[in-house]
Amino acid sequence: MAGNSIGKEFVVTTFGESHGKVVGVVVDGCPAGLPLSEADFQEELDRRIPAEPKIVSGRVEKDIAKILSGVFNGLTTGAPIALMVENKETQSSDYEAIKDLPRPGHSDYTARIKYGGFNDYRGGGRFSGRVTVALIMAGTIAKKLLGRYDIDVLAYTQSIGTVKTDKKFTASEIRKNKNAAATRCPDLACAEKMEEVIINARKEGESLGGVIECIALNMPVGIGEPLFDALDADLAKALFGVPAVKGVEFGAGFKAAELTGSQNNDAFLLKNGKVLTSTENAGGILGGLSSGMPIMIRVAIKPTPSIAKEQKTVNLSSMENAAISVKGRHDPCVVPKAVPAIEATVAITLADHLIRSGFMPKVLKEH
Amino acid sequence: MAGNSIGKEFVVTTFGESHGKVVGVVVDGCPAGLPLSEADFQEELDRRIPAEPKIVSGRVEKDIAKILSGVFNGLTTGAPIALMVENKETQSSDYEAIKDLPRPGHSDYTARIKYGGFNDYRGGGRFSGRVTVALIMAGTIAKKLLGRYDIDVLAYTQSIGTVKTDKKFTASEIRKNKNAAATRCPDLACAEKMEEVIINARKEGESLGGVIECIALNMPVGIGEPLFDALDADLAKALFGVPAVKGVEFGAGFKAAELTGSQNNDAFLLKNGKVLTSTENAGGILGGLSSGMPIMIRVAIKPTPSIAKEQKTVNLSSMENAAISVKGRHDPCVVPKAVPAIEATVAITLADHLIRSGFMPKVLKEH
Amino acid sequence: MAGNSIGKEFVVTTFGESHGKVVGVVVDGCPAGLPLSEADFQEELDRRIPAEPKIVSGRVEKDIAKILSGVFNGLTTGAPIALMVENKETQSSDYEAIKDLPRPGHSDYTARIKYGGFNDYRGGGRFSGRVTVALIMAGTIAKKLLGRYDIDVLAYTQSIGTVKTDKKFTASEIRKNKNAAATRCPDLACAEKMEEVIINARKEGESLGGVIECIALNMPVGIGEPLFDALDADLAKALFGVPAVKGVEFGAGFKAAELTGSQNNDAFLLKNGKVLTSTENAGGILGGLSSGMPIMIRVAIKPTPSIAKEQKTVNLSSMENAAISVKGRHDPCVVPKAVPAIEATVAITLADHLIRSGFMPKVLKEH
Amino acid sequence: MAGNSIGKEFVVTTFGESHGKVVGVVVDGCPAGLPLSEADFQEELDRRIPAEPKIVSGRVEKDIAKILSGVFNGLTTGAPIALMVENKETQSSDYEAIKDLPRPGHSDYTARIKYGGFNDYRGGGRFSGRVTVALIMAGTIAKKLLGRYDIDVLAYTQSIGTVKTDKKFTASEIRKNKNAAATRCPDLACAEKMEEVIINARKEGESLGGVIECIALNMPVGIGEPLFDALDADLAKALFGVPAVKGVEFGAGFKAAELTGSQNNDAFLLKNGKVLTSTENAGGILGGLSSGMPIMIRVAIKPTPSIAKEQKTVNLSSMENAAISVKGRHDPCVVPKAVPAIEATVAITLADHLIRSGFMPKVLKEH
Repeated sequence: MAGNSIGKEFVVTTFGESHGKVVGVVVDGCPAGLPLSEADFQEELDRRIPAEPKIVSGRVEKDIAKILSGVFNGLTTGAPIALMVENKETQSSDYEAIKDLPRPGHSDYTARIKYGGFNDYRGGGRFSGRVTVALIMAGTIAKKLLGRYDIDVLAYTQSIGTVKTDKKFTASEIRKNKNAAATRCPDLACAEKMEEVIINARKEGESLGGVIECIALNMPVGIGEPLFDALDADLAKALFGVPAVKGVEFGAGFKAAELTGSQNNDAFLLKNGKVLTSTENAGGILGGLSSGMPIMIRVAIKPTPSIAKEQKTVNLSSMENAAISVKGRHDPCVVPKAVPAIEATVAITLADHLIRSGFMPKVLKEH
Repeated sequence: MAGNSIGKEFVVTTFGESHGKVVGVVVDGCPAGLPLSEADFQEELDRRIPAEPKIVSGRVEKDIAKILSGVFNGLTTGAPIALMVENKETQSSDYEAIKDLPRPGHSDYTARIKYGGFNDYRGGGRFSGRVTVALIMAGTIAKKLLGRYDIDVLAYTQSIGTVKTDKKFTASEIRKNKNAAATRCPDLACAEKMEEVIINARKEGESLGGVIECIALNMPVGIGEPLFDALDADLAKALFGVPAVKGVEFGAGFKAAELTGSQNNDAFLLKNGKVLTSTENAGGILGGLSSGMPIMIRVAIKPTPSIAKEQKTVNLSSMENAAISVKGRHDPCVVPKAVPAIEATVAITLADHLIRSGFMPKVLKEH
Repeated sequence: MAGNSIGKEFVVTTFGESHGKVVGVVVDGCPAGLPLSEADFQEELDRRIPAEPKIVSGRVEKDIAKILSGVFNGLTTGAPIALMVENKETQSSDYEAIKDLPRPGHSDYTARIKYGGFNDYRGGGRFSGRVTVALIMAGTIAKKLLGRYDIDVLAYTQSIGTVKTDKKFTASEIRKNKNAAATRCPDLACAEKMEEVIINARKEGESLGGVIECIALNMPVGIGEPLFDALDADLAKALFGVPAVKGVEFGAGFKAAELTGSQNNDAFLLKNGKVLTSTENAGGILGGLSSGMPIMIRVAIKPTPSIAKEQKTVNLSSMENAAISVKGRHDPCVVPKAVPAIEATVAITLADHLIRSGFMPKVLKEH
Repeated sequence: MAGNSIGKEFVVTTFGESHGKVVGVVVDGCPAGLPLSEADFQEELDRRIPAEPKIVSGRVEKDIAKILSGVFNGLTTGAPIALMVENKETQSSDYEAIKDLPRPGHSDYTARIKYGGFNDYRGGGRFSGRVTVALIMAGTIAKKLLGRYDIDVLAYTQSIGTVKTDKKFTASEIRKNKNAAATRCPDLACAEKMEEVIINARKEGESLGGVIECIALNMPVGIGEPLFDALDADLAKALFGVPAVKGVEFGAGFKAAELTGSQNNDAFLLKNGKVLTSTENAGGILGGLSSGMPIMIRVAIKPTPSIAKEQKTVNLSSMENAAISVKGRHDPCVVPKAVPAIEATVAITLADHLIRSGFMPKVLKEH
């Protein structure tokens, strides 16, 4: 069942469950010499929980990262970095009553079959969105590494349900409004509408999904491997590892399938001695290798499966048809929480490939 | 640069280039006892080349698979199976003239930077769609393994450019019309229109992309691993390893982002003592594990980057702006050729996970 | 620098340093349904520290394992199991004075070069024998898994310096005297002599090494993979990962090189319907696969490099020749402590291969 | 059963059987820009077969390597390099008669159980020493890479049976007498005695083993990873993957276990501004990392299990005790053939770690 690690040079192994003691991660392969402190993780961990209580689960943890290993005198040593966050706000009793009633859209049924019933089912256990805390911790390190080379990874909410911003944002606009709206949409007018529809969904015992766009700026040219370890292949793998992701596309993505070659191809041109492209349909990746243009990814997030509205299910103990109304604390929309998780996941993958390619050294220079 | 293998138990390593001597593959981890002969590969290899010359590249190879190892007395032995197909129809001179002119939308530029100019640039070299021949050979083995358990993987063309079939097909309809249309669309009326738009695109020096849908039937419940090695994550990784793929979605995919929880969740119900779902928005995967419902994947294929129409590019030798019109033989649309490659890729990933899970044994029983 | 994981199905990732906060391990791929509690680790952890203070370092930690994840209701869940032990008895000041003076025989010099000086040098940091605590925790789980199939792994001290027992022990003799002697030699008369030479060595500011023999009983036939993942190859890799190991041999080992074919070959014979061998020169492994006979491994442990006696070294800061006398607390002989680490390492490797082969299922049956 | 690959950055996947069509290898991760031609492999392949027919098997193949991929214009491209050698001199009928009679000391019995009888048993199939041809091809590439940095790997026969040279050789002595003696011992007087004992052993229907010593010169300092991917751990794993290896030790090896700390520790000293050690007991590896001193490895090779002398075995079909006298062509001593295989194996592992460490770039500079 080993499958809880990702990466070849920057190897991230996560552990922990929603209602267990901790959520944690081991980052193996981080170059030596990177300044790192527990405070570095706080901003990203805090950002995971939007400040607007109306749109998030009643379970609000003040997550505080502990560094267990791999840092000495405030710098990474090259040894594996183990990190953990304690789970405190668990109400496991919520789940006892629905133990045998798999929640539609959740992993309850499939996990029960896979693990012969031994899995920790409380709050989705290992399959909970809470495990993204581990991604965010590893992503914080990855982002610091990328920052050395001015590579920036920026994600934002593009749509919630059918509410969508049509604006194209510059990197500085995304950065500026990063946390301005609880829904993490930099178009603040749109963000407000998103908040409304989430609040309404909750009132109706419903939930919503949405689309997150993520861009990565200043990637050097030629990062990635051909075919199986293509940069887009590894990004997609990592992104589908984030709970609730149902679709991933790069650049024009599914729209590219409707264009002609001359419409879709990004013409090369010289600008200040650099090779750029006039359009960005490829999403910054050609042949699985970074092109030097911004990497652009769109990720579809499904609506939270846990809803108060009654749904049909099957009682796996009595093997009879049944109904369920999920009473536990749950988010009416996980998209805002997923924004930093998507950023982290992209950063982790880029860091791995930058090290694999030899672009990023194993020992960092003084900074 | 090692990145030419995929899988953990059914490990596929490909090699070869478009204009090199061969395209080949090593399949390590195939269970022992599977009947396998060179003839087994022929149907799939033949199927890669639609019989309608108007819609395919002038380069038509009669690909014949050679088994180099791993088979004894007509049965797999458990040792690695090496396979190769010789390249014969190469016109490498086509590429000499455009060596310094990277084709927009292609890997020419990124590969040149990555490999310091040492890459084999002829016909895209290692990045050519021709390497899907290796996937198809490995996929043939994977499909035979899946067939033991009545697991069937079926792909078909859902759209070419803006021509799209809205029909939903049963598995037997897809099977029946598998090769009926050169465009691999089982809706034969639509298939004809697809053929037309491809022929028109070629006339105009253009190319087209499209969408391929792939389903996998009869998967057992609970196959896949949580998080990083989720079944959808590994499928997506493998699929983005197929040249020209720009988007992958499961079940409702990007549409799920617009639905509410109660709309998107697939309710569980009992039918003949089995747990099924009433709808199929999840695409047969919950929490990264197979649910027992059909796996449904949609893959966006971009239009072939090689087009006769003049495009802007940069001369990488003189570092001046330039123009290119690609004269080499190329497909006006790779979607039909990609259909068996997508099937193969999905089959490879499913076989790997079925072995990993312990569902498929390392030594097969008499059949 | 990623290299802190081992195994393909039972994947062990360790973290922590000698003088950091913790030593820990993540075990990914443990089958679900194994009873596991924190108490299970105590016997093995205690056994690491011989009760005789005269032969061990002054640093005696009461190591207590904490289970952080992967266990629910007293049973493994199939999710990764994270474990840690806190470091308490650290006297890091011992190492400040010798920071620039690499101890001969230690990793101080090579680690400093590799990590550009960023490594945690205190007590050897990541290279300390203390990290075997992580192996022992993972090994405890592995042993419990093996126990399900009556597979037993038993190690003991065969020699310390030039003091060697010539006796051959039955499994029950090894088990019986497992902890009888502080030196972990089941020949108690010899064990006493071993203790003496260790005490004498310490008095003289010296240290000693020795040889550990490890046997594994009741392994099924045919476990292992051909060539690179041969059972002996993976055992050797894991064993050389234990600090201070300088040689590994199986069965007759180096002696086999002096025998003729007929002397060295173990003749097959039938006994109670089972295929056995009349001799055991192969050490229970033929062609990299277990033969069903006891696996026999001998491991050479070098004398502790840290000694009070003055040694020549180089001051890496001033780049001048220098002398060093290691004052920190250190073991005069690590062989007794290494005994459970060797057992753990062998158990980890066997568990991995038993799962890989399909012999051990991913979900355990009630027991 | 996947286990036919080794390495993390320089990944070697072998395929082929003793009596199949070919023996081959895919080398993934070779840096781009290395001059490589089919002729490069010839010297190493020829060297595998000592010119003295009296001491080798009657099966003498003129092995000729074919490059199938990964080389363009005489230089490696960064794409996987596939290589193969055809098997021609197979006399498979030799093995039909003994199909059910496992040869003592061979993999016949264990492989039959593991693969449920589907394995290719002819000449040991996948377990034959013939697969070292694949190692030698991959090793040829590795050696060329090492040669760029003046890193040299030299192996020689130190003993055959009880005939042993006590001489210590300089690198140039080993190089000079590399192929001088058919037994590959640079001490030519001793080499002659070795030849005699091999010829005598054959006459008596017997076989002999021996010890090979291998040194690697000019390795930079700090190559390897701590613990599991220690340089010695990975070397040992690779070496035990060579058929017939029963023991591996570094530097003083098993002798170190008898020394005191001050005897075994190699004191550091400055010489021409470089940090060296006064003795070489560590075998050039400290803490799993290269120390800059010569790497010294000793490998025990068991006597060829195939002997004409009658041995006891079991008929696995009738399940009765039986006798066997191996009539097929076989080497009376595989040590001379193993010498280049050991060199190749060491070179492969060093190349992998040099790339992993970042010391060797992914694209080579003009030379």
